[in-house]
Amino acid sequence: MSTARHLWDPLHVRVLRQLRDSGPLSRAQLADRLEVPRPRLLGELNRLIAAEQITEAGPAKSRGGRRSTLVELNPRLRFAAVDLGATSLDIEITNGRLEPVAAYTEAADLRKGPKPVLARIGELLAKARSDGVYEHLDGVGLGVPGPVSFRDGVPVSPPIMPGWDGYPVRELLAREHGCPAVVDNDVNIMAIGERHGGVADSVDDMFFVKLGTGIGCGIIIGGDVYRGIDGCAGDIGHIQVTAHGPTCRCGNVGCLEALFGGAALAAAATAAARSGNSPALAERLAAHGAVTARDVADGATEGDAACVQLIREGGRLVGSVLAGLVSFANPSMIVIGGGLAQLGHILLAEIRSVVYRRSLPLATGNLPVILSELGPRAGVAGAAVLASEITFEQWS
Amino acid sequence: MSTARHLWDPLHVRVLRQLRDSGPLSRAQLADRLEVPRPRLLGELNRLIAAEQITEAGPAKSRGGRRSTLVELNPRLRFAAVDLGATSLDIEITNGRLEPVAAYTEAADLRKGPKPVLARIGELLAKARSDGVYEHLDGVGLGVPGPVSFRDGVPVSPPIMPGWDGYPVRELLAREHGCPAVVDNDVNIMAIGERHGGVADSVDDMFFVKLGTGIGCGIIIGGDVYRGIDGCAGDIGHIQVTAHGPTCRCGNVGCLEALFGGAALAAAATAAARSGNSPALAERLAAHGAVTARDVADGATEGDAACVQLIREGGRLVGSVLAGLVSFANPSMIVIGGGLAQLGHILLAEIRSVVYRRSLPLATGNLPVILSELGPRAGVAGAAVLASEITFEQWS
Repeated sequence: MSTARHLWDPLHVRVLRQLRDSGPLSRAQLADRLEVPRPRLLGELNRLIAAEQITEAGPAKSRGGRRSTLVELNPRLRFAAVDLGATSLDIEITNGRLEPVAAYTEAADLRKGPKPVLARIGELLAKARSDGVYEHLDGVGLGVPGPVSFRDGVPVSPPIMPGWDGYPVRELLAREHGCPAVVDNDVNIMAIGERHGGVADSVDDMFFVKLGTGIGCGIIIGGDVYRGIDGCAGDIGHIQVTAHGPTCRCGNVGCLEALFGGAALAAAATAAARSGNSPALAERLAAHGAVTARDVADGATEGDAACVQLIREGGRLVGSVLAGLVSFANPSMIVIGGGLAQLGHILLAEIRSVVYRRSLPLATGNLPVILSELGPRAGVAGAAVLASEITFEQWS
Repeated sequence: MSTARHLWDPLHVRVLRQLRDSGPLSRAQLADRLEVPRPRLLGELNRLIAAEQITEAGPAKSRGGRRSTLVELNPRLRFAAVDLGATSLDIEITNGRLEPVAAYTEAADLRKGPKPVLARIGELLAKARSDGVYEHLDGVGLGVPGPVSFRDGVPVSPPIMPGWDGYPVRELLAREHGCPAVVDNDVNIMAIGERHGGVADSVDDMFFVKLGTGIGCGIIIGGDVYRGIDGCAGDIGHIQVTAHGPTCRCGNVGCLEALFGGAALAAAATAAARSGNSPALAERLAAHGAVTARDVADGATEGDAACVQLIREGGRLVGSVLAGLVSFANPSMIVIGGGLAQLGHILLAEIRSVVYRRSLPLATGNLPVILSELGPRAGVAGAAVLASEITFEQWS
């Protein structure tokens, strides 16, 4: 399965993708864009109309001559896109064009194991159906915060998801909803989302770096997600940045995530508040009993020196890891997303500074390092793309 | 261009590759292996025979019934494979099966610029022709120690090759020899060589790590070399391993290459000889006026503690870089080659130890880290593979 558009993909997949991404088109426009002989396309369209996968959508604007009729994806098409975080659950129901028609967000605790979490997803989806959001689902895409065997549709030894190892998530979703389902790592779906509808639109070789509770990297190579042999490519949170750092939850010392994951930043911010180094954080700690990445970002905006320093230090660490990966992979773009991306341009400037200084000039001469455009929606956006891809490919 | 075997490659390319890699085959065997309908294959073979790209090669062993005739690549096929190192020039002339029929090795100095170096290559090839090694060349493959724009066939800002930037190397080779030519980075061709005929035979996702004067990594993804957007992927020699290391020739501090490239190891070995820490190295320094990686390897074999220590320290540094890259890319194999690979199993054990300890267990559970099988031949072997690929693809 792929998110790239290959000329050798079956024609029906190429038609469905085109209608998903462009909206209604005339038969002539479709034939032009897909570079397919008209008779072959018309036969395929008749077949797709008979299967109710696409429908006719009224007349095209006249260009003189005979009016042509537009075709579009069946307006009743619905995909469920689910982004499961360590502590949160986001769901979007989209139409065939991947536009959200309903969205749900709530807290979740993955450590309860797969059964209650999947049951809760089932409840939310059932509620959407009883609210009239959909009659039936055509595809389900799910992202989880851990390694996934993409081929088998199961989590594989996910460190923060006890009980999920090898659990047949995809199979259960597909059976429950009677439609194709797909399961991937959360960072991969964020990368797919950003590439499909965000700042990395159609960029074929890029990193999507998620900085949040965990730190990971979605790798797009040649337009496809690169998952590695065991499905755990992109696990950059456990790259060592110092030999004498704190011990990470993985058991090693000095991992990037142990120094600048969400928990590490909150701990450092709390220490700065208590030590008197940061008036801005002290004030927020007193008011709310805890400080978060958002507080550090706000403090920095107000000019609080300790907050700026915390962000710069984190950016330096992230940059040093990315500099090595840029030398290794020579990508054409780096997108920074995840909760800590709200640290914004101070973070970005520091990451850029280190990457541009430390990597080969040839590799950075033309390398944008930019913030995610979709923000917290990147995950569900990518899950919807994956759901549509797997559905289109399984239709025949 | 590709080194992977794709089912969608043109039939003639698939036939030629198969005969290159298997030797003579009957038409029936070819049809089986390529999974092509017999009539289509027979038509293609007749065409290839008419073009003198393949020839009939006598009767196959009888399996009862009518004797079939074998086909093989034209025995007069010749490829020139050139591996240009910082200080050396290796050439092999191969037949269509990529077996060397002649080989030349001599010192070279790339810093003289492209004209004298390419002229010398031309002289050696002319000598081979006058010796009767070939009548004409069918393809030329060249590896150079620096970044290459593979598409354009030119070196791009190669740090140790003054005067080569943008020089039309491929075009000149093709024109001089009247055949297809291909230019790639030396580490990429080593990776291709090892994957085609060495220890990584047909492994689709792997790193080939060259430890020599320079340090670099050939990246094979999905059976193809991954070159990155600017052709400089794999430049791992300039990944920082310590913030307080020596200054590298690239201008940064603490690069892997500055700590454990060939020059760094020779300097450390000389220091160990002079300080009295290493009797084995002191003896060799006195005898030859200099010490090399080979001396360190020999000293370690004799049990010289300082030599063992030098190798272990280097292995630790290489391992720390590779551990991060394994977390990032989750490859299925790492092959260690280049001149320093002669440091052997002490080096390998240390690299393994760090990689296995520092990377995600899921990524290392099944990850061989092994020494190159082709050794100094890896480069020319890969250049020959590339030459044959480009030639087969340009034949029609």
